[in-house]
Amino acid sequence: MGSQKGSESYQAFPMNGGDGQHSYAQNSTNQRRGTDSAKNIIKETILEKLNLETHLQNSSHTFRIADLGCSVGPNTFFTVQNIIEPVNLKYQSQEEYTTDSVEFQVFFNDHVGNDFNTLFKSLPEDKQYFAAAMPGSFHGRLFPESSIHVFNSSYTLHWLSKVPKEIVDKNSHMYNKGKIYFTSEDKEVAEAYSAQFERDLESFLNSRVLELVPGGIMILIICCVPPNALNAFQTSINIMGNVLVEMANKGLLSEELVDSFNIPIYVPTSEEAKESIKKNGNFKIVKSEFLFRLMNSEYQRDAHSSSMHFRAALEGVFKEHFEHEIVDDMFVQLEKRLASEASILTDPRYKELGELLIIKRN
Amino acid sequence: MGSQKGSESYQAFPMNGGDGQHSYAQNSTNQRRGTDSAKNIIKETILEKLNLETHLQNSSHTFRIADLGCSVGPNTFFTVQNIIEPVNLKYQSQEEYTTDSVEFQVFFNDHVGNDFNTLFKSLPEDKQYFAAAMPGSFHGRLFPESSIHVFNSSYTLHWLSKVPKEIVDKNSHMYNKGKIYFTSEDKEVAEAYSAQFERDLESFLNSRVLELVPGGIMILIICCVPPNALNAFQTSINIMGNVLVEMANKGLLSEELVDSFNIPIYVPTSEEAKESIKKNGNFKIVKSEFLFRLMNSEYQRDAHSSSMHFRAALEGVFKEHFEHEIVDDMFVQLEKRLASEASILTDPRYKELGELLIIKRN
Repeated sequence: MGSQKGSESYQAFPMNGGDGQHSYAQNSTNQRRGTDSAKNIIKETILEKLNLETHLQNSSHTFRIADLGCSVGPNTFFTVQNIIEPVNLKYQSQEEYTTDSVEFQVFFNDHVGNDFNTLFKSLPEDKQYFAAAMPGSFHGRLFPESSIHVFNSSYTLHWLSKVPKEIVDKNSHMYNKGKIYFTSEDKEVAEAYSAQFERDLESFLNSRVLELVPGGIMILIICCVPPNALNAFQTSINIMGNVLVEMANKGLLSEELVDSFNIPIYVPTSEEAKESIKKNGNFKIVKSEFLFRLMNSEYQRDAHSSSMHFRAALEGVFKEHFEHEIVDDMFVQLEKRLASEASILTDPRYKELGELLIIKRN
Repeated sequence: MGSQKGSESYQAFPMNGGDGQHSYAQNSTNQRRGTDSAKNIIKETILEKLNLETHLQNSSHTFRIADLGCSVGPNTFFTVQNIIEPVNLKYQSQEEYTTDSVEFQVFFNDHVGNDFNTLFKSLPEDKQYFAAAMPGSFHGRLFPESSIHVFNSSYTLHWLSKVPKEIVDKNSHMYNKGKIYFTSEDKEVAEAYSAQFERDLESFLNSRVLELVPGGIMILIICCVPPNALNAFQTSINIMGNVLVEMANKGLLSEELVDSFNIPIYVPTSEEAKESIKKNGNFKIVKSEFLFRLMNSEYQRDAHSSSMHFRAALEGVFKEHFEHEIVDDMFVQLEKRLASEASILTDPRYKELGELLIIKRN
């Protein structure tokens, strides 16, 4: 066994815990909408593509599901339920099926710093599965070989294992001075991010292929941006970067602190994600659907809820690097600017998609 | 599947979390001493009694261990390591063994209210296993059928699933008025506790027999009292009860609050525990050893460390029922009285044993 299981060598950025006003639990309806619209597609694909024969021949009655990047709920519980229902239907349709044929064991995974105590306290009362937590980075190995039947990972793969190292290296010409992200002009930085995304997806897939049973299924919802669309995430992050630079200019924090900080997130194009999966070669894409536009005129969001959404997801990353007061001020400023530049929320050229990819282990 | 998996219908009394001065992590050396002296016996018994044939014939390379009532560490990590080492030796002695023959998956179990966040943060850096947490009461089902190879549960089974119902029923003649535990005079209350212990051990064993693989092993360390010895735990709890009654007499809390409170712990005799296991019929006792005397003149404890030990283990139960200030005062009083009645700590007639029982599923 490799030592990778022991050491947490990845950067970890947990969502805000608890259930207060800035918590992920209270600010993740956006992710929830994606999960809901995926439900029927997941159900149909499981009924059509999941192969139970091997499982039923095997003496084990345990069907194992893992949600990677589960955060603190409640979305993860809906997701798990949406997987269990069609699997149960599928079992019931088998001749060999008896009421006791299957027991579900569900692993909730997220970084070690995730608030698992809150997750456990909010487990559904009527759950029909054994619920376990598996802490650790999904960029490495998490489970024993051939032990998981269905993986899920929703809106998680845009989180990189780390910021690309070139852009935080002072001596590199790619050092990302005066910014915390990139714009469409910063070709080299964008490429460094893209390459990091590809490396991370590769190590994610290489771990999962070992952990899945043969024929096992992985359900991924990936944040992506259509070609030629404007990227609202990128625009918002750059607003935050500008706010921080202005604060540094006023002497409220050091310039170097801003220069050395970058957001470890990359929102790929749909093609980039699919190409990486094909290149890996261990999985077949059995379903690919765009879910809904996360941020456009059809799905109006006001400046307040939008900034709260960013805060729930990103506050932890900022507060690891900056003083808490600075971060609080920055989110207040973000809301003000989103309100004054309302086009970011309503301009139809801003498009961000959730792409549902269901892939099957060869 | 029964609904028992979903509902946490048992009372839960987590150890003190975190790592502060009253934490379980800082006040569990007593438990640690028991674990250490058990190490060699466990090693020998695993080498002698564990049967790997079925496992190696099976295509699975996963060896699953669960520690029931793990608290927040660090004892649970030592315990797990003490099991993994002989299992690894055993594997290496098999002809079919190759370096990749086995991957360990370890489940850390405790009540939903346990501080799993702290547990996860203190997982050993160099651990050679996949570590998961499984929240829930070990008096019910926790794992899928035939999925665990070795269970461990150290110093846990004295925790009852609930206080025997007769003694908290105002209308029962067994209503335990003016006390929070029983003395040797309270025959009926003692019997109610004993019967509850037996019911709980029975449901514990009935769950485990389903979850263990055939031939699987369970390592139990049970707190027990030799016949005719004085029970230091009982004496100390009754001191706490007296303190509370005196506080009620002074009007600091209501008398009814004391009357309705009882400690959900029963320290059996060694014979009681073994008889229950034999009666269950699903397990063979393959090893039975007394570990060391927890509380006697050989193992001097001062009043301070003794009261801290009680506080780390019991504060949660008291604070669920009484005002926090009352409980703080009670522990201060406990220390004073243990100091003034030093015989409780040194009288050789006070004996409490850890009995190591290794049992094997038929």
